[in-house]
Amino acid sequence: MSTIQEYHGHAAFAPGIVVEPHTFTPRPFDDDYDVEIKITHCGICASDIHAITGGRGQCTYPLVPGHEIVGHIVRIGNQVDPVKFAIGTRVGVGAQCSSCLSCHQCHRHREQLCNQRVNTYNSKTKDGYITQGGYADYYRCHANFVIPIPSELPSEIAAPMLCAGVTTYVPLKDHGAGPGKKVGVVGIGGLGHMGIQWAVALGAEVTAISSSSRKEELCKQELGAHHYLDMSNAEVMKAAAQQFDILLVTANGLDTNWGTFFDLVATEGKFILVAAPDTPISFYFYSIIPRQINLVGSIIGSPAQIEEMFAFAIEKNVRSIVQVMPMAQATEALHKVHDGQARFRIVLEA
Amino acid sequence: MSTIQEYHGHAAFAPGIVVEPHTFTPRPFDDDYDVEIKITHCGICASDIHAITGGRGQCTYPLVPGHEIVGHIVRIGNQVDPVKFAIGTRVGVGAQCSSCLSCHQCHRHREQLCNQRVNTYNSKTKDGYITQGGYADYYRCHANFVIPIPSELPSEIAAPMLCAGVTTYVPLKDHGAGPGKKVGVVGIGGLGHMGIQWAVALGAEVTAISSSSRKEELCKQELGAHHYLDMSNAEVMKAAAQQFDILLVTANGLDTNWGTFFDLVATEGKFILVAAPDTPISFYFYSIIPRQINLVGSIIGSPAQIEEMFAFAIEKNVRSIVQVMPMAQATEALHKVHDGQARFRIVLEA
Repeated sequence: MSTIQEYHGHAAFAPGIVVEPHTFTPRPFDDDYDVEIKITHCGICASDIHAITGGRGQCTYPLVPGHEIVGHIVRIGNQVDPVKFAIGTRVGVGAQCSSCLSCHQCHRHREQLCNQRVNTYNSKTKDGYITQGGYADYYRCHANFVIPIPSELPSEIAAPMLCAGVTTYVPLKDHGAGPGKKVGVVGIGGLGHMGIQWAVALGAEVTAISSSSRKEELCKQELGAHHYLDMSNAEVMKAAAQQFDILLVTANGLDTNWGTFFDLVATEGKFILVAAPDTPISFYFYSIIPRQINLVGSIIGSPAQIEEMFAFAIEKNVRSIVQVMPMAQATEALHKVHDGQARFRIVLEA
Repeated sequence: MSTIQEYHGHAAFAPGIVVEPHTFTPRPFDDDYDVEIKITHCGICASDIHAITGGRGQCTYPLVPGHEIVGHIVRIGNQVDPVKFAIGTRVGVGAQCSSCLSCHQCHRHREQLCNQRVNTYNSKTKDGYITQGGYADYYRCHANFVIPIPSELPSEIAAPMLCAGVTTYVPLKDHGAGPGKKVGVVGIGGLGHMGIQWAVALGAEVTAISSSSRKEELCKQELGAHHYLDMSNAEVMKAAAQQFDILLVTANGLDTNWGTFFDLVATEGKFILVAAPDTPISFYFYSIIPRQINLVGSIIGSPAQIEEMFAFAIEKNVRSIVQVMPMAQATEALHKVHDGQARFRIVLEA
């Protein structure tokens, strides 16, 4: 098998929302367990911007972001299943590319909870390499983190589901979104537009919650939301108090009033945060005690959960809604995401 | 039946830790559903100090605190069960004295979660009265909130269990403390000394967690803790990382580093807060996302849960550990509590 010596990608070289062409040497291919992928698509996640701007801790520059990767297999290790991962197979990689594979969490197929989780980019491997992401021509990682894409899902649709999709699917399912439950989804972006669809597909009564009335028709017509809540309308917010068994919060700002969100949660309801600000949050803890609200953190999903999500998406006809842009326009695309212009996810095409 | 026109208690007249003799007219006795109790004992809860110092919102002065009330029935309404609540029966009232009794939560015997919960003191009834607590000679409230005290439990032992006991029993039980689970209890005071005993009785492996090494022997010998963690020892704390399936936090200070606590919680573990500071808390929400920690609020317990707790305490020989002081020395007793000198609860005796 030929060895690819250099990858060509788009990297941030300094804090800011700019990526530029970058040629780099990938970490050595593991002849036993790795899979190498020729990338055709990579979705843009808000985390990409957090990372390259240095918002969430250290960023090692130059950095190639991107963790919603879809492409075709061009090479596999000796121990990799040659049927499931046959050369040419269309596959994806989400936000995680490695874990210990031997702990309790890995054994139960919840690798995202492994203490040795390695992120798809900007994360140090046990050999000391900093992982580089999918705004590039190739990606390589352990086969455990490579997920075949079902034929029903176009690549550009599947890409954002590898992160935005599973990040919202998993907590809604695990925390009981379903018939008889009222679910509110705060933020109608890359994560939120998936969350609304999942909650509807799971059978819940779903309210889309946004900071203005702009997206009401869109949420109801395109995403299937049963109700819409405009957070800027104090009276509407007051009337909505304590109604959501599950509040999935996919967006927030530095000026977020967390108490306003807690007010929306039903007694003993769950407040699930999948997007957190880079700065500390502050609130009266006493505000969650009397009604016994649960604040729950949730992070991405495992390969097994991604496979499950794909099957559920096909069964229920849930799809990401994307805009495709050439990978060469990655900087422009990042700015569109940063400025809230993506509807709902921008996917870079090689 | 004779009507008692005046109650004699000990009230705070201004913010501060001072209560003074106070004669007041109780709210009218409800001839249908009320029970009137001649008080023999009342525990001192840290909430009493929060209330009279004005720490947690408005306090209406003069205020008689006290919501761990034990005494004997002297009068009952026409509709009150004359067997269960026969005159002379030894009974208790915890931190709640009223609710709507018609909502979902009341119907399922979780009256503490009713939106119309009325606290035993410093709380406005639907008729506009401000409730006055148990540092007094009598108390009256709806029979639903009056709990018979089993003969196995002395009054001074039972009193703190009405609040401190049930506040720690309910979340430990509801969140699965039991065999195979590691439970940490932060704070070895009125709440914590009960929490340790409950967790042990429920079959969990229990660690007492305190800000110094002072209480180690006491926690192990008297309360049955299997382990002890001195928070002031950074190395010990580091070694204890991620071990507790349930961390019950019963104490905190203005300088609490919440991240330190989250570090102790196992992946997907529960952080249960039953004592919250009067000021907002601040932390990186991102610190709970990657390990999917649940922050859970829990508030007191319902009358049904108090009855259940008493039965469990008798079965497992769990008892509060108290110091008894004359009610006339309430101010002195409050200062002992405030200064952390109570071992573990001070109970005022009439």
